[in-house]
Amino acid sequence: MKNCDSPIGVFDSGLGGLTVLKEIHHALPEENTVYLGDTARVPYGIRSNETVLKYCFENVRFLMDREIKLLVVACNTASSIAIERIRESIGIPVIGVIEPGARAAISAAQNNIAVIGTETTIKSGAYQKAIKELDTTVKVESRACPLFVPLVEEGWIDNEVAKLVAEKYLLDLRNVDALVLGCTHYPLLRAVIGEVMGTVPLIDSALETAREVMSVLTSAGTLRSKNRQDDKPGKHEYYVTDMPQKFYELVERFLGHSAENLSKVDL
Amino acid sequence: MKNCDSPIGVFDSGLGGLTVLKEIHHALPEENTVYLGDTARVPYGIRSNETVLKYCFENVRFLMDREIKLLVVACNTASSIAIERIRESIGIPVIGVIEPGARAAISAAQNNIAVIGTETTIKSGAYQKAIKELDTTVKVESRACPLFVPLVEEGWIDNEVAKLVAEKYLLDLRNVDALVLGCTHYPLLRAVIGEVMGTVPLIDSALETAREVMSVLTSAGTLRSKNRQDDKPGKHEYYVTDMPQKFYELVERFLGHSAENLSKVDL
Repeated sequence: MKNCDSPIGVFDSGLGGLTVLKEIHHALPEENTVYLGDTARVPYGIRSNETVLKYCFENVRFLMDREIKLLVVACNTASSIAIERIRESIGIPVIGVIEPGARAAISAAQNNIAVIGTETTIKSGAYQKAIKELDTTVKVESRACPLFVPLVEEGWIDNEVAKLVAEKYLLDLRNVDALVLGCTHYPLLRAVIGEVMGTVPLIDSALETAREVMSVLTSAGTLRSKNRQDDKPGKHEYYVTDMPQKFYELVERFLGHSAENLSKVDL
Repeated sequence: MKNCDSPIGVFDSGLGGLTVLKEIHHALPEENTVYLGDTARVPYGIRSNETVLKYCFENVRFLMDREIKLLVVACNTASSIAIERIRESIGIPVIGVIEPGARAAISAAQNNIAVIGTETTIKSGAYQKAIKELDTTVKVESRACPLFVPLVEEGWIDNEVAKLVAEKYLLDLRNVDALVLGCTHYPLLRAVIGEVMGTVPLIDSALETAREVMSVLTSAGTLRSKNRQDDKPGKHEYYVTDMPQKFYELVERFLGHSAENLSKVDL
């Protein structure tokens, strides 16, 4: 039985999962969190299923040693490949980003949904499957956009290169009812993606994922705010497998606070 | 004392080193070769020195177990970070891609040389240092071009995105006497880079590296063609840490022959 003070564990292949962590901090400010970014082996989206699974289980083992009460797989590639296998192997709730994203897409669109993501996420068919499970009649298109992650990492999120790449990938998807941003990096390109897509709603699963974390903790009775008299804000730990300095700067930029408890670890 | 039949070992973070291997096969068709591409952890150019060193030594250990007679570090990032440390640790000749590239640049230009590469290669200052050691009076500029590798991996080597990215990175470097393509992926973008750079000579270190391999084996007396009566072509082995199928296709495309002896390995 997990203590309500136990942290929520979150992992991603790198920094993209910070978009999910930000929503968790916002929705649940009293919760303690532990974030692991596997920056020594990022990106996962270009690797085989077998290799992604291996890396995921190393991440899970690390977070389980920190006695987390709930695990968030804040990486679309990892969620699409590994979530079932992780659920089978550990005794705490596991939340990925695919199912919340699929639910939000179905709420926004009735006929045609498009999903964009990394090569491995798209090839896995995980979004298509999750959407079809909710509604068999909806049409789902999907497309890999491999240059979006390096564009974000380069910081080119609203220049003419970003615009041209977005047009190349998305121009013929403008007839859909909703576009799922199936990679945690993509919300950072929301402006240029929105320019190409016009009025099509853009679905960002980070917010939905945070809501799911809240409802799972509520139903399990392990919400920290419900079990304490004080309302002290939660403590946040960060671990990366490489480049801690770069990550530190990104946390400040993304989350608006310093990553005081940041360490580099070998998995 | 190594046998002349022992293979030449070549490693790279992924597939870029195939440009170097191709020149070695062309210059020394009788030599046996073993190529290792660390595709489970590519790219190296975004990682810390410490992590690149760790990965390099795992690669070196694997190739040393194959009893190679000479090692080629066919990756600019690895060459810039690790070459001295590798030389100190093993008893066979070690050839990187930086020094041959620096020599070719000095042959082509007398006043201003520009070097482009990954963030880690450029930050290491290895090219700048190698060029200055040959000629202290020459001016060296350098620039990281992080989007070039993902463009090549996406196969966008001559479309309008590639052209626009090349312009963004290179337009103000057109006044130099020579441009060093300081990453093994970049020769594949030669057409669009050449369009921006006009008549500026583009230095590709793959060819120079193959020449150095030839001269080192000649002086060591371990050239296979000199020690055998027959002139059978060499045998070639390939190892990758992930995605063998994709690599197989790339070898066919790059080298024009099948990678018959291709295996996936864990390091």
